[in-house]
Amino acid sequence: MSTTSSHQTWGGRFSEGPNARVAAFTESISFETRLAPYDIRGSIAHARMLSTVGVLDADEFKQIEAGLTAIEGRIEAGNFPWDPALEDVHMNIEARLTEDIGALGKKLHTARSRNDQVATDVRLWLRDTLDSLEVEVDRLRHGLIGLAEREADTIMPGFTHMQVAQPVTFGHHMLAWQAMLARDAERLREIRQRVNRLPLGAAALAGTTFPIDREMVARELDFDSVIDNSLDAVSDRDFAIEFVSAAALIMTHLSRASEELILWMSPAFGFIDLPDRYCTGSSIMPQKKNPDVAELTRGKTARVTGHLVALFTLMKGQPLAYNRDNQEDKIPMFDAADTVAACVSLFADMVPHIQVHADACREAARRGFATATDLADYLVRKGVAFRDAHEIVGNCVQHAIAQTCDLADLPLDALRRFSDAIGDDVYEVLTLEGSVAARNHIGGTAPDQVRAAAARARHALGTQAG
Amino acid sequence: MSTTSSHQTWGGRFSEGPNARVAAFTESISFETRLAPYDIRGSIAHARMLSTVGVLDADEFKQIEAGLTAIEGRIEAGNFPWDPALEDVHMNIEARLTEDIGALGKKLHTARSRNDQVATDVRLWLRDTLDSLEVEVDRLRHGLIGLAEREADTIMPGFTHMQVAQPVTFGHHMLAWQAMLARDAERLREIRQRVNRLPLGAAALAGTTFPIDREMVARELDFDSVIDNSLDAVSDRDFAIEFVSAAALIMTHLSRASEELILWMSPAFGFIDLPDRYCTGSSIMPQKKNPDVAELTRGKTARVTGHLVALFTLMKGQPLAYNRDNQEDKIPMFDAADTVAACVSLFADMVPHIQVHADACREAARRGFATATDLADYLVRKGVAFRDAHEIVGNCVQHAIAQTCDLADLPLDALRRFSDAIGDDVYEVLTLEGSVAARNHIGGTAPDQVRAAAARARHALGTQAG
Amino acid sequence: MSTTSSHQTWGGRFSEGPNARVAAFTESISFETRLAPYDIRGSIAHARMLSTVGVLDADEFKQIEAGLTAIEGRIEAGNFPWDPALEDVHMNIEARLTEDIGALGKKLHTARSRNDQVATDVRLWLRDTLDSLEVEVDRLRHGLIGLAEREADTIMPGFTHMQVAQPVTFGHHMLAWQAMLARDAERLREIRQRVNRLPLGAAALAGTTFPIDREMVARELDFDSVIDNSLDAVSDRDFAIEFVSAAALIMTHLSRASEELILWMSPAFGFIDLPDRYCTGSSIMPQKKNPDVAELTRGKTARVTGHLVALFTLMKGQPLAYNRDNQEDKIPMFDAADTVAACVSLFADMVPHIQVHADACREAARRGFATATDLADYLVRKGVAFRDAHEIVGNCVQHAIAQTCDLADLPLDALRRFSDAIGDDVYEVLTLEGSVAARNHIGGTAPDQVRAAAARARHALGTQAG
Amino acid sequence: MSTTSSHQTWGGRFSEGPNARVAAFTESISFETRLAPYDIRGSIAHARMLSTVGVLDADEFKQIEAGLTAIEGRIEAGNFPWDPALEDVHMNIEARLTEDIGALGKKLHTARSRNDQVATDVRLWLRDTLDSLEVEVDRLRHGLIGLAEREADTIMPGFTHMQVAQPVTFGHHMLAWQAMLARDAERLREIRQRVNRLPLGAAALAGTTFPIDREMVARELDFDSVIDNSLDAVSDRDFAIEFVSAAALIMTHLSRASEELILWMSPAFGFIDLPDRYCTGSSIMPQKKNPDVAELTRGKTARVTGHLVALFTLMKGQPLAYNRDNQEDKIPMFDAADTVAACVSLFADMVPHIQVHADACREAARRGFATATDLADYLVRKGVAFRDAHEIVGNCVQHAIAQTCDLADLPLDALRRFSDAIGDDVYEVLTLEGSVAARNHIGGTAPDQVRAAAARARHALGTQAG
Repeated sequence: MSTTSSHQTWGGRFSEGPNARVAAFTESISFETRLAPYDIRGSIAHARMLSTVGVLDADEFKQIEAGLTAIEGRIEAGNFPWDPALEDVHMNIEARLTEDIGALGKKLHTARSRNDQVATDVRLWLRDTLDSLEVEVDRLRHGLIGLAEREADTIMPGFTHMQVAQPVTFGHHMLAWQAMLARDAERLREIRQRVNRLPLGAAALAGTTFPIDREMVARELDFDSVIDNSLDAVSDRDFAIEFVSAAALIMTHLSRASEELILWMSPAFGFIDLPDRYCTGSSIMPQKKNPDVAELTRGKTARVTGHLVALFTLMKGQPLAYNRDNQEDKIPMFDAADTVAACVSLFADMVPHIQVHADACREAARRGFATATDLADYLVRKGVAFRDAHEIVGNCVQHAIAQTCDLADLPLDALRRFSDAIGDDVYEVLTLEGSVAARNHIGGTAPDQVRAAAARARHALGTQAG
Repeated sequence: MSTTSSHQTWGGRFSEGPNARVAAFTESISFETRLAPYDIRGSIAHARMLSTVGVLDADEFKQIEAGLTAIEGRIEAGNFPWDPALEDVHMNIEARLTEDIGALGKKLHTARSRNDQVATDVRLWLRDTLDSLEVEVDRLRHGLIGLAEREADTIMPGFTHMQVAQPVTFGHHMLAWQAMLARDAERLREIRQRVNRLPLGAAALAGTTFPIDREMVARELDFDSVIDNSLDAVSDRDFAIEFVSAAALIMTHLSRASEELILWMSPAFGFIDLPDRYCTGSSIMPQKKNPDVAELTRGKTARVTGHLVALFTLMKGQPLAYNRDNQEDKIPMFDAADTVAACVSLFADMVPHIQVHADACREAARRGFATATDLADYLVRKGVAFRDAHEIVGNCVQHAIAQTCDLADLPLDALRRFSDAIGDDVYEVLTLEGSVAARNHIGGTAPDQVRAAAARARHALGTQAG
Repeated sequence: MSTTSSHQTWGGRFSEGPNARVAAFTESISFETRLAPYDIRGSIAHARMLSTVGVLDADEFKQIEAGLTAIEGRIEAGNFPWDPALEDVHMNIEARLTEDIGALGKKLHTARSRNDQVATDVRLWLRDTLDSLEVEVDRLRHGLIGLAEREADTIMPGFTHMQVAQPVTFGHHMLAWQAMLARDAERLREIRQRVNRLPLGAAALAGTTFPIDREMVARELDFDSVIDNSLDAVSDRDFAIEFVSAAALIMTHLSRASEELILWMSPAFGFIDLPDRYCTGSSIMPQKKNPDVAELTRGKTARVTGHLVALFTLMKGQPLAYNRDNQEDKIPMFDAADTVAACVSLFADMVPHIQVHADACREAARRGFATATDLADYLVRKGVAFRDAHEIVGNCVQHAIAQTCDLADLPLDALRRFSDAIGDDVYEVLTLEGSVAARNHIGGTAPDQVRAAAARARHALGTQAG
Repeated sequence: MSTTSSHQTWGGRFSEGPNARVAAFTESISFETRLAPYDIRGSIAHARMLSTVGVLDADEFKQIEAGLTAIEGRIEAGNFPWDPALEDVHMNIEARLTEDIGALGKKLHTARSRNDQVATDVRLWLRDTLDSLEVEVDRLRHGLIGLAEREADTIMPGFTHMQVAQPVTFGHHMLAWQAMLARDAERLREIRQRVNRLPLGAAALAGTTFPIDREMVARELDFDSVIDNSLDAVSDRDFAIEFVSAAALIMTHLSRASEELILWMSPAFGFIDLPDRYCTGSSIMPQKKNPDVAELTRGKTARVTGHLVALFTLMKGQPLAYNRDNQEDKIPMFDAADTVAACVSLFADMVPHIQVHADACREAARRGFATATDLADYLVRKGVAFRDAHEIVGNCVQHAIAQTCDLADLPLDALRRFSDAIGDDVYEVLTLEGSVAARNHIGGTAPDQVRAAAARARHALGTQAG
């Protein structure tokens, strides 16, 4: 055996170790130390099981457990020296264990492989990640519900095609954001179920010749079940893809909200303001106050979408079982997790502090003929068929544009020129308050409906299946 | 009103209709006629509800229902003249209805908008699509389980890094494919629950001023619930993204299987053959027989991944509620659905006809020192620590390479030169049959485990939650 | 030989033809007929070369040429019956040729394969596509330059972070769009050079045993050179990827312009209007006039980005030389070409008709302290260091916000409270006209610079390397 | 002014600075220090120009230059303390300069903004990156040409559809890889031209009121030209997208080569071996020797494709001029640059050490009827039409499969049963050497053509436009 590979765990059949550039190219220690606590937890459960089935004796397990626990302490304290020459987290820990407790450390890897070990570590990490992400998503949802209740009566223009469509309330709009995040929380819980299955015991790809007890390990590590096929256990990366897809969807929702925050803070709209602490300025333009958090969140959405593409492309066409390509799953997955967590948390901080300029919102709703549909509906109630009503109101609008005034500003006889079904009760339906109040059914924008919907959302949040 | 826009449903405020190039650019009729039956079904439920709440009278509903049913018949019979000038499916149907039953047809669009209408149509279509796709996924799973049982004892090399790793059975490998598809089926069922919620009643974005009964419509159309926020109802495209993400994952699984089928059919492997009817030839090379179905499936995976990117990119940064951009959701979603359905079905047809060349599989497993891990495990059982055992076997392999022979071909004294823990019982663990039989735990490749796993999989398929 | 495969060009070694589902799955005739004229042109050049080198005689070539020309006529006239059972365009044409001119038709495929044939067809098609796309890009650029000249003096707010930053002119903004497209045109020309290389002669993958003259074929078909390696010639899809990447970049530019058009047409901005013929309305809201062309262009950007991902994913990890996966390159490439052509053309039509509301633009520039940087620069010219000047102006702005007025509305003594370097000449630099006129260097927004830049752009367009 | 924002360069109008989480979210210092040398170089050129046009005096410039040079030295020596509270590289350097040389440092930012400054930094960095990447691409090409010459006569099977198609030489195959990289080098040079244009002078977005000389700065920094529009100068990210697209294409080429290396090293092929130093082993399977460099390269291709998607998605739909989203361009661009550089360099190291097993290659070429096309061509030369010849040979192959022998093993009378055009000279064309030698035209696989092509490639590499 060559001395250059003496520290490698697989050096026996090699005449030389990897050269320095290859070692640097293939190492993973620089990005996966976050797995260390999970690796140790998994190793202890594995060793305990080995002692239960008689591959280790009770004393050996005790020593291994103590050794690993000591290493965990050093890692937590930040004084564990990671060595890239030892390739990865697993080998660093095992090498140190052998240094600390002697030759016994070399028995830890019995009946397993790095393939099933890393799969176990990642699933444990992702399970925790999903749980803490859901907490933050729910905190953001709480904030949105509170804001919705606060602004349940605040009228703003609802837009389609960025044209003024119909008046809605600000609270109603906030509940639309909340509804997106409620679906996100559902997805996180579903993914958790598929993540929480134990790959350990698959060994390299085919299982092991030792009499292992996988159900015991699953119980020790709080997995719901064991993965039923060893080839699948080491080659499956569905959970990474599913998670990053769900993360990209959360980001997509935040980016839609960001787009609106950015627009609403623009002087062209002026609907809202944000506290200075959520904004930054310009190095050249002294007057600038920029909604950077929203802009960066919109930008980071692109990043997470890119990570999703990386994972799909990574797995496409890979033969079973394990290929080294799969090491490339971690950076996109970890960065997607960090990015979505940071954005959700900052939104959860920021949302309760959104300052709504009710006057500017109301003023904007008065531009753009927001109550034209109400006029059409009025005509339908007077017996006109909807399509004909639509045509009549379209002509009224064309006339009002020519007069540069709003529909409500047209005198009755001007309106009646387009339809004699119009009476002097028409002006009630042309008010903003009348318009929103009339949309009084489940899902509608009437303030009472908004309050009821907020209450339902709050209740759902309290009782959702964990 | 200009004559050019007389057929448009929104012409009232316009002085001219879209020019021909704009009309061609914005039309959707060329790709969405598959929505027609769902549009009619939704319209009938909407009209029935309008009559229940008194917006239409009973006779009006009867006429509308009869008119729509007649149109449906003509569409099914293939003699409905779709007119691109009428923009979309909804307007084609409504225009024809008005032609057929007179001015009453103009009342159908009361209390709804195309925004909530198309959202309803698409959800109804996707619900059917998910259901029929799951049937085909399950048919493929049945085929794989059958093949696994047929080849439960057939030994082949298991690969990692495309190097021979350890022997597995062909049946075990087929069950790994099945396990991937089992997760796919889970995902399809979860997505269905989020698809099956009713957007109708959201109207353009804010709800409607008519006294609608959304729960009634939901019941009529077998939706599980109504969507709780009107802005969300018309702007949500999560379901499209979720579906295409799940479709891309199914494709990714099929592409991994395809890669293996292509390799195994290559003369370098020669593990399998496929009936001629699943292959094509070459225009120039008379001897060629190509696994085109697998190659195209691998290629089409790229296509579906591209569609997923299209949808994520489409929605990123869109302000609420509806923007015309969203029309672009349909082609990617429809094509993803068609592609995944075609590939899954063809695989379900083809899998039972895979011919396994057991001799070639066995021969390949004998190359590459597939039982080296068994030798290391043997040493562990003789008391050697695993890491030391690994090193000893690595050295044995290096020696065997130099002798250009397999481990089992080395004489006992040659092996004992590396460790005196090796006895003459070592040759048992170096056989392929011994190796696979020894991996005898849940998830392991032992033939008995494969048969048990196949039985479990078959049972799960029979009882899965629908 | 089985009768079922009698029409296949490769049936000799097969005992059965593909079944109907496989045939439907593998056919390409449904999407590639646009290649037909190129296929015929390539075949004629190939046959002429074969006759020159003596593989065909002169009379044989004449007959083949006449036969192919007749087929081309029928295709152009729309009465050529494409048969999916014949798999692809090439085989349809060859089969018909053999029907028309007899057994001689069977000689056409000598010394080539479908692999090099389709590569040739696609390159010929793409060369034409690039040329016509560049014409349209240039037409759009002309329109933008004209609009820039028309609006060289129109002041609007320049935005960063969607906050008002500094005043610019509308013409200056249009030239920014033009600059993006100028780079796009450069890229199209560069790609053309790599497209315009001849693959024919590579045959299946290794070249042919016939004494072909590839340079002659290249000359006949106006290719710049022959591809130097036969394996590369049939497996290279760089040109498809490069083209779709450039197309996605054009779309990205149009989507940025679209975003701005959509915002500017929103009543919140009201900067522009578009003729009714470039807009559509709403089925429910009679007042709506939506900028659909811009919205759909923004949406279609996602589609082309998706196609690019499809192509990259398709090629990743493919071994040489040809794999059937590659058939999947066509739909993304064709659809990207159609999409970008439609969007560019429609923009080229629409841009000259953009109506600018100069008053609204000017009014918006007056909000948001657009001249704050001018005040800082003024202080620098009075001897204050820039960073200190920036701080002073920031404090002035904070004061003006508290007074709800603009900087120019603050009385001199109020301004001087922040810095006694401020004199009564300060009000000149606080005007919008003064601000834009002062940015008077190459690339700056001063109207004179805009006019000069427009002249340079027009000149570049006239003289660019074709 | 609040003390919390006292260190911010834009604090004047703010009542509070960003809170800690916002500061952490928005900082860029953690990933952009690689820009520092370019930032300093750009600042010196900017200051020199300011002194030339009289905004600074000569002595001020001298002090600024000396101060910046000193800072550069400290950064190079690794003892410059980057402070995330100062947001970015630019502000860290400027703050330190002001500390070192006093209030004069506050004048450096006159007539520029971070928007044009960062655009300049990135372009300078990317220009260097392109240049060093091209050097490595060319080194790899040299290695491939050398290997091609070494193995110009080594016969291996050429594959299509992973089926044996026709014999080629190993050298020919290496030149196909080289051809891909030659196109990559072309693209890098073209992109360099668009990168090498100066944005400085655009200031925030509109230019500056100072009498700057942009051409002078361009000359100082070796830019080819100045960017002609200030809005475009700060908002253009085409160069990032173009570069990452080209990088993804390089990676795609390397991934195709990787796929082949991985297959060829698999025992199923056994065509090549790699020195141990380019491989790693397994923690569990002592016999394993894995081609990790190739596998990771294939995997990293996914990563770079993901980065490209991130950039396209980032820019889609962004209004002009600068938005904070754009900060997210750096991580994908930097990581793409690092990844492609590492992979190309490692391939350049490794390729000359590929060990070709000529016997295994030759043996594989004898399987799969690789010379069937030669037999068809032979028949054509005997007067049979190609399509008929194809059919005849297909039948011969079917017969040989039934006899489990190669075409060359069939006796003459067996062959003549399919066509009496076959004579006893047929066996010459059925040899592998005869087959490759016969493909003797430009681009063909004949060893003489391979040598000539290698010479041409070497010449092109020596003379290519830099």
